[in-house]
Amino acid sequence: MNTTGIRALDATTFDAIRGSTRDGDERRAEAEARALLGFLSEPGDVVLGRAVAAVGARATVDLIVDGAGPSDLASALGRDGDATSIQQAVQAFKRWQPRLDDGEFARSLVQAARVGARLVVPGDAEWPWRLDDLGAAAPLGLWVRGRPGALAEAEAAISLVGARAATGYGQHVTAEASAGLVDRGFAIISGGAYGIDGTAHRAALASDGTTIAFLAGGIDRYYPSGHETLLSRIAETGAVYSEVACGTSPSKWRFLQRNRLIAATGDATVVLEAGLRSGSLNTASHATDLGRPLGAVPGPVTSPASAGCHRLFRERDATCVVDAAQMAELASRIGTSIDARAVAGTGTAGDAGPTRPAAEPGPDGVRVLDALSTRSARSVDDIARLSGMSPGHVMAVLPGLEAEGLARRDVGGLWTRRVVRR
Amino acid sequence: MNTTGIRALDATTFDAIRGSTRDGDERRAEAEARALLGFLSEPGDVVLGRAVAAVGARATVDLIVDGAGPSDLASALGRDGDATSIQQAVQAFKRWQPRLDDGEFARSLVQAARVGARLVVPGDAEWPWRLDDLGAAAPLGLWVRGRPGALAEAEAAISLVGARAATGYGQHVTAEASAGLVDRGFAIISGGAYGIDGTAHRAALASDGTTIAFLAGGIDRYYPSGHETLLSRIAETGAVYSEVACGTSPSKWRFLQRNRLIAATGDATVVLEAGLRSGSLNTASHATDLGRPLGAVPGPVTSPASAGCHRLFRERDATCVVDAAQMAELASRIGTSIDARAVAGTGTAGDAGPTRPAAEPGPDGVRVLDALSTRSARSVDDIARLSGMSPGHVMAVLPGLEAEGLARRDVGGLWTRRVVRR
Repeated sequence: MNTTGIRALDATTFDAIRGSTRDGDERRAEAEARALLGFLSEPGDVVLGRAVAAVGARATVDLIVDGAGPSDLASALGRDGDATSIQQAVQAFKRWQPRLDDGEFARSLVQAARVGARLVVPGDAEWPWRLDDLGAAAPLGLWVRGRPGALAEAEAAISLVGARAATGYGQHVTAEASAGLVDRGFAIISGGAYGIDGTAHRAALASDGTTIAFLAGGIDRYYPSGHETLLSRIAETGAVYSEVACGTSPSKWRFLQRNRLIAATGDATVVLEAGLRSGSLNTASHATDLGRPLGAVPGPVTSPASAGCHRLFRERDATCVVDAAQMAELASRIGTSIDARAVAGTGTAGDAGPTRPAAEPGPDGVRVLDALSTRSARSVDDIARLSGMSPGHVMAVLPGLEAEGLARRDVGGLWTRRVVRR
Repeated sequence: MNTTGIRALDATTFDAIRGSTRDGDERRAEAEARALLGFLSEPGDVVLGRAVAAVGARATVDLIVDGAGPSDLASALGRDGDATSIQQAVQAFKRWQPRLDDGEFARSLVQAARVGARLVVPGDAEWPWRLDDLGAAAPLGLWVRGRPGALAEAEAAISLVGARAATGYGQHVTAEASAGLVDRGFAIISGGAYGIDGTAHRAALASDGTTIAFLAGGIDRYYPSGHETLLSRIAETGAVYSEVACGTSPSKWRFLQRNRLIAATGDATVVLEAGLRSGSLNTASHATDLGRPLGAVPGPVTSPASAGCHRLFRERDATCVVDAAQMAELASRIGTSIDARAVAGTGTAGDAGPTRPAAEPGPDGVRVLDALSTRSARSVDDIARLSGMSPGHVMAVLPGLEAEGLARRDVGGLWTRRVVRR
C-alpha cells in the first residue's frame, strides 16, 4: 500500500472540486485534510470528530499519516493518562490505517471532478450550518452536485421521509404535504429513495420548490438507479449531498448514518407513511435525539404501512400532523437545545437507533455484513478496509455473525456473506 | 303548585323502585331524599352536590322544601359570611324551586316502577364506585334497568365512544376492539347512540360480554328509538343507566353531562372514530379532567370522520391505540389522582368542555335552548322549570340567544326556539 503521496494532491483537480481558486493556502489545506479524513473513516466516527475539534483537520491528518502513536492521539484529545481514551485511540488507528491508500483517494477525487461534484466544508458560506448540532458526529465535509448553497440558503427546511413500500394513501398525503410546504417557503429534504421520498421530491419540483436529497453512497453514482433522472432534476435547482467520497457504495451502515444528516438539516422531521421496519423510523430517532420536532402522519390502523407512524406516537411522542399547515407549525417550534446536542454527540455514531429490532445484528455486525459479499470470498484485511473498522475488530465480530448463520468462513480463512431468507 | 306532599311517597312504589324491602328507615329516607333532589336539579349541580356532602341528602331536602333562606344553605356549606356563597345559594334556590311539584315527582316514580327501573344510591353494593371520583359533580343516584350491579361488579371497564356518523372503517375497528376487550375481561361502556356506540354494544353482546349504556334522558323511554331492541338486549345481561328521573327528555345539556358518567365509570376512555364536532370529544375532555387515561384510534387524514381523533392527539395528549391489546394496556395504567378529583369537582358542572366551538352558545345558553320549543311558545317560568335554572337566570340568558338569532320573543312575552340552518 502506497501512502507516501497521499497529501500531494493534483491542484487542478482540487480546484475543480472546490469550485474556484478562491481558497487561500490555509483554507485549501483544511479542505484537503477534511477530504482525506472523510475518505479514511466511516460516517459518524466520533473519535475522529473529537480529534478534529481539538487540534484541527490538518494536525489530525499528520497524526494518522505520519504514523504517530495512539498516545499522541489521546493527548490530542486532551486525555493523556486516560486508559480508556488510549484504548479508543488504538482502535481508531486500526480503523483508519487500512484505507491509507493514496491511489484510491486520488481516483475518488478525479471521479468527483469528472461528475462536477463539489466539496463543501465548515466555514464555507455554503456549509449547511444546521449540521453543527451533530457535534462530534457532524460530517467532516459534504460532497454536493447541484447548487452547493441550496441548504445553507434555505430559511426554512423540513425533512419528509417514509417507507419505500408506500401506498396510494401515503403518496397522496406526501404529495399534498410537500406542495403545501413549498408554498409556505420550505425547502424539502429527503433521501431520494423510492416511495415516500421520491414523491416528496417530485411534488416539490412540480411546485417549483427547492428540494434536497441526501444519499448514502458517493454522489458520482445516483442511487437507486431508477431515480437517476429524478436526482438529476433535483440537482438542477436544488442539491444532492453525501458525506462519503465518490466511489463509495451505499451500505446499510451508511444509510443509517445518512439519516442523521436528514434529521439534522430539517427544522423538523415528518414521517409520512412507514411500516414497522422502515428505515425512516431511524431518521425519526435521530430527530428526537437532536431535539428536533418530530411529526408523523396517522393512517388507517388496518394498514401495516402506517404502523410505524402509530408507533412513533406511542413510543417517541411524535406530534400528529395531518396537513402542510400543521407540519409548518411543527417546524417553527423551538428546536435544538444544548442538552440535545450533548445527547447527539455521544449517541449517534455507535448506535443504529432504538428502532432496530432486537434480533438484528448490532451496529458493528451491520458494518461487517456490508463489507461481505455473497459471491466473492474476502480476507479480514479487505473486510476491515471496506467497513472502515480495524482488522482486530472485524475478527471479533465475524464469529458472532457466523454463529447467527449470517456469514461463512471457508477453509482458506476467507469470508462470504450467507443469503438469509426471512 | 302543590309541594306539601312531596315527601309523602307511596311505600309500595318506592319499595319496587328500590328492588326490595331491605332498606331500614334511615336508608330508605336517604334514597327518597336523593330521588327528590335528583328530580329538582339538573345533572352536575355542584352546589347541590356540596350541600349533600356537607349535611346529607335529607337535611338538604329539608332546607329546600321547608323554604329555608339562602343563608341557611350557605351556612350548611360552611360559608356563612361569604357573600359569593350566599349569592350562589340564592341562585341555586331559584333553580330548584320551580320544580317543587309533588304531582310530577310522584308520576315520575310510578313510571319508573312501571318499567321495572331501580334506584341505586351511594352506599348500595350496586353503586358504581368509580363515580365517586366526580366529587361534588357525582350523580345523587342512578336509575337502572337490567342488572343494577353490572358496573360495580365489573373488575375492569372501558368506555368506547365515537360519532354517530361512523364510517365502515370506524365500525370495523370498533367491533374488533370491543370483542377483543371482552375477551380480556372488560365490561364495555358506551352511550347507546347510533354509529360507534351501537357497534361497541353489539360486538360486546355478540361476544357474550357485559355491556353498559348511559342514557341522557329518563330510562323509561329508550333513546334513540331505533335502538329500543338493542337497549333491551343490553338490559338483559348488562345495564342501562341514567341519573335523570323517568319522564325526563334527553336534552343537549343532559347529553353533555351524561358524558361525564361514561368518562368516570371507564378505567379508560377510547374515542374510536370522531369528526371535529362529535359529542364524544366532550366525553374525552371529561376523561382527561378526571385524570382517566384517554386513547384515540387514528384513521386516514383524508377522512373527516377521524379528524376529531387526530385533534385529541394534538390538543389532549391522547394515547394512540390501534387494537384491543393497546386499549387494555391503556386502561390498566394508574388513572385517577387526587389532583384530578379536585379539577373534576370545580370544572364539570358549569363547563361543557373546551371542545365546544367558540361560535356555539355557552353552557347556560345550551340549557335554555334545550327548554325552548320550535312549535309551542313558553313562558319564562316554564323555561326555568324545564331547564332547572332560576327564572331570573333564564331572563338574563334569553336576550343573548335572541341577539344570536337562536330564540324569538312574541308580543305576549312567550319564547320559541328559532330553526337555524348551518
